[in-house]
Amino acid sequence: MGLYFEDVVADETHELGVYTFTREAIIAFAREYDPQVFHLDEEAGKQSIYGAMTASGWQTTSVWLRMLIDERTREADMMRFRGERPARYGPSPGFEKLKWIKPVYVGDSVRYTTRVIEKRDSKSKPEVGLLYFQNEGFNQHGELVFSLVSKMFVERRVRSA
Amino acid sequence: MGLYFEDVVADETHELGVYTFTREAIIAFAREYDPQVFHLDEEAGKQSIYGAMTASGWQTTSVWLRMLIDERTREADMMRFRGERPARYGPSPGFEKLKWIKPVYVGDSVRYTTRVIEKRDSKSKPEVGLLYFQNEGFNQHGELVFSLVSKMFVERRVRSA
Repeated sequence: MGLYFEDVVADETHELGVYTFTREAIIAFAREYDPQVFHLDEEAGKQSIYGAMTASGWQTTSVWLRMLIDERTREADMMRFRGERPARYGPSPGFEKLKWIKPVYVGDSVRYTTRVIEKRDSKSKPEVGLLYFQNEGFNQHGELVFSLVSKMFVERRVRSA
Repeated sequence: MGLYFEDVVADETHELGVYTFTREAIIAFAREYDPQVFHLDEEAGKQSIYGAMTASGWQTTSVWLRMLIDERTREADMMRFRGERPARYGPSPGFEKLKWIKPVYVGDSVRYTTRVIEKRDSKSKPEVGLLYFQNEGFNQHGELVFSLVSKMFVERRVRSA
């Protein structure tokens, strides 16, 4: 839920938030989903090609997902507060170009952003449009560490012709 | 860790395992990473376009990841048992074509498979090769619900020319 397709502005960058990857959070995620030694142990991290313990790339992705959903929830709450019904979001037909550009180390803080890069009509579904998002994460040195192109079907106010 | 680049056979499908998406596990994942109402609540699921409560697409992806790492760990254990040092795996330059083809509902069981679809030399890194994997998940009706192309740098026995 969130803004309607027609109201979404392309090429505007939205700040999603900042997350600090603590040792504890890195280990907890890795234990559950990605138990590779360099995500679990400082010493194994030192001996890896990264030179230190790193967060799973899927954790940097999961944190982005959570921030995006929280942002959309805030947007929908604001709309309800103004007496509007939020637009339906989903499903997502999938994702493209998931890239982990640099490692995320213990103690790194990542700032996440999202930007609509394309708005497309749907030929088969006149009640929705398709949004393409460029999502990015930057560490405390301003270096790009994560990027992902996501796609989402979003409800329109008016059916397309 | 796992098989060396030279020993990896392309076009062979490997079974990774089967996972059943319980209501409890779907809710636990959604609470942490993807708190959309149709992943948290049966009634909201019924009112969604899916017609019932569904698992987050990122959960179907996370389960695949965990199974893949477990498989590679088993492979490395076998190699050590035979007195060999397992090959180094990683980093992954990223992923492509993450697709959630059909919803995964409460109680669905998904069978995951992986298959190397391409082996490439690395121009800049003669000590490793690049593997492309086609990963898939099928529900209990045999329907494809998840697919993802992953890439991984893998240690070679002998440096490429």
